[in-house]
Amino acid sequence: MKKTVLTGIKPTGHIHLGNYIGAIKPALELAQVESYKPMYFIADAHALTNKHDVHELKQLTRGMMAAWLALGLDPEKAIVYKQSDIPEIFELAWILSTLTPKGLMNRAHAYKAIVDENERGNKEKDTNVNMGLYNYPVLMAADILLFQTDVVPVGNDQLQHIEIARDLADRFNHSYGKTFTLPTHSIQETAILPGLDGRKMSKSYKNTIPLFEEPKSLQKLINQIKTDSSPPEAPKDPEQSIVFTLYKQFASAKAIEQMHEAYQSGISWGDAKKELFSVINQVLEQPRETHKELLAAPEKIDRIVAEGAEKARALSAPFLQEVKERMGM
Amino acid sequence: MKKTVLTGIKPTGHIHLGNYIGAIKPALELAQVESYKPMYFIADAHALTNKHDVHELKQLTRGMMAAWLALGLDPEKAIVYKQSDIPEIFELAWILSTLTPKGLMNRAHAYKAIVDENERGNKEKDTNVNMGLYNYPVLMAADILLFQTDVVPVGNDQLQHIEIARDLADRFNHSYGKTFTLPTHSIQETAILPGLDGRKMSKSYKNTIPLFEEPKSLQKLINQIKTDSSPPEAPKDPEQSIVFTLYKQFASAKAIEQMHEAYQSGISWGDAKKELFSVINQVLEQPRETHKELLAAPEKIDRIVAEGAEKARALSAPFLQEVKERMGM
Repeated sequence: MKKTVLTGIKPTGHIHLGNYIGAIKPALELAQVESYKPMYFIADAHALTNKHDVHELKQLTRGMMAAWLALGLDPEKAIVYKQSDIPEIFELAWILSTLTPKGLMNRAHAYKAIVDENERGNKEKDTNVNMGLYNYPVLMAADILLFQTDVVPVGNDQLQHIEIARDLADRFNHSYGKTFTLPTHSIQETAILPGLDGRKMSKSYKNTIPLFEEPKSLQKLINQIKTDSSPPEAPKDPEQSIVFTLYKQFASAKAIEQMHEAYQSGISWGDAKKELFSVINQVLEQPRETHKELLAAPEKIDRIVAEGAEKARALSAPFLQEVKERMGM
Repeated sequence: MKKTVLTGIKPTGHIHLGNYIGAIKPALELAQVESYKPMYFIADAHALTNKHDVHELKQLTRGMMAAWLALGLDPEKAIVYKQSDIPEIFELAWILSTLTPKGLMNRAHAYKAIVDENERGNKEKDTNVNMGLYNYPVLMAADILLFQTDVVPVGNDQLQHIEIARDLADRFNHSYGKTFTLPTHSIQETAILPGLDGRKMSKSYKNTIPLFEEPKSLQKLINQIKTDSSPPEAPKDPEQSIVFTLYKQFASAKAIEQMHEAYQSGISWGDAKKELFSVINQVLEQPRETHKELLAAPEKIDRIVAEGAEKARALSAPFLQEVKERMGM
């Protein structure tokens, strides 16, 4: 029996190399594991808990789907869907909410963080908390449990959500008989990529290299990466270099080894950056083209998403029916 | 344009004359108002917020539907459905939750009542509060707003729920453009029926007369109604009599007038109770038979409920689609 592995994708914009190496690439590699049955979904209903621009959300959802498809997500091998296309998630969220002690939500990290901030600012503790945010862990549990998920790859900050999902599955099974698979987590080893200035690559630091940047501007951005002032022929410590750290994420093992030596025997920053451009461009050339093609044909993305919804609902609709019958509905 | 009037029905058992006169009859009369488009639903998903027996919930839902149908609810003239059959309600509940400030739920009466009780008992304030109960006003807003309800008949205790629904409709319209009808309430003038002992007829007082009681036991129960010890021929004050108060709810205007005179000129309690039995039995004889027939043919109830769901979803599915599109989903 293959294990269901579920990955949620936030519809955010401005995808950069850091997102790709830290999150997208390891998530896509899950689809290569023989014993896994991979599922991926765009969490557009989660996105509603924040203020959002309507047109932007639509575009972000399509853009994110285009990006993942371009980077190798294969809708023939994985089930790929948009959260808001699966009504059963919201029905299950209600069902689970009736089994969720309110105290459990009071202790949820994301909510507590806002309360703490409000209290530090001498504000009423629930200021700027909406019920979507407060209910978020229940919706996430529904996301996970509806598909009998075995494994959820998460960062450490998401661990509590998996625990809540397990807890709710357990409560349901206890009250209504064994129904839900108890999900487990797998901690995703995520490489943190440095940005142009050496700090973590992040939108908020404005030090990113966009994932689908055209060659010319990609080269330009790479040229902006901070280096020291050592002369071209001086030996350089690859482990201290931002350029080399990025290089390692895109080049082959053999090329990395050669480049390591080149640094030690002396390579100019200009040449090192040219090589970096070359490997990044090689890896991303094809995805960039595919991404462009997909964005130019949104109806193709929409069709893939619609087909994914069909596949997902073929699982979720009969299962939710079973859940409802067990509860007497 | 007819006004949509929505009535929610809790799936509870042991329906008695007090429920009929106080809630069911006035709700059914709405269907007779020419300018109204009536909708009725069994709130089985609300019922999950309390501990429940699975088989019982199923039976209660069917039993309640059978009762209303037997009492004159006409599924050809009204849309009649079961809440859990309409996935769009739960999708909309999630959507609305993202617009609901948590502070609004903190102030909801039902929640506050439990918190007060916990605090009086020196318990942690959220003891025994589940998220279904806490979210209940949002689900109720979804119940109401999904069908563009114009009027919700409510008791005074439910007024706050309509205000919350209006508030959320208003917030949505403000953020995403005019979409939802702002519902209004109509306060239902509910007659409070006395029970056998003169206190309000209520399950908790064990003083009820079940609605579908067979004639023999109906007569027996009526004989137990508390009366004073005045002799048969003594004039009696009808307004002080439980027997007369019940009589007024079931007899014709003319019969009431005649009975009023009979009390004043002297009627034995035995005869007054016989007359009471006679009018109650006359009103409920046919419903009692129909109710029995329906319960013996649950597939017939199920079919009516399934047809109702179809009619309701013909409205809710395209409307929710519109709502989602407005939000960028």
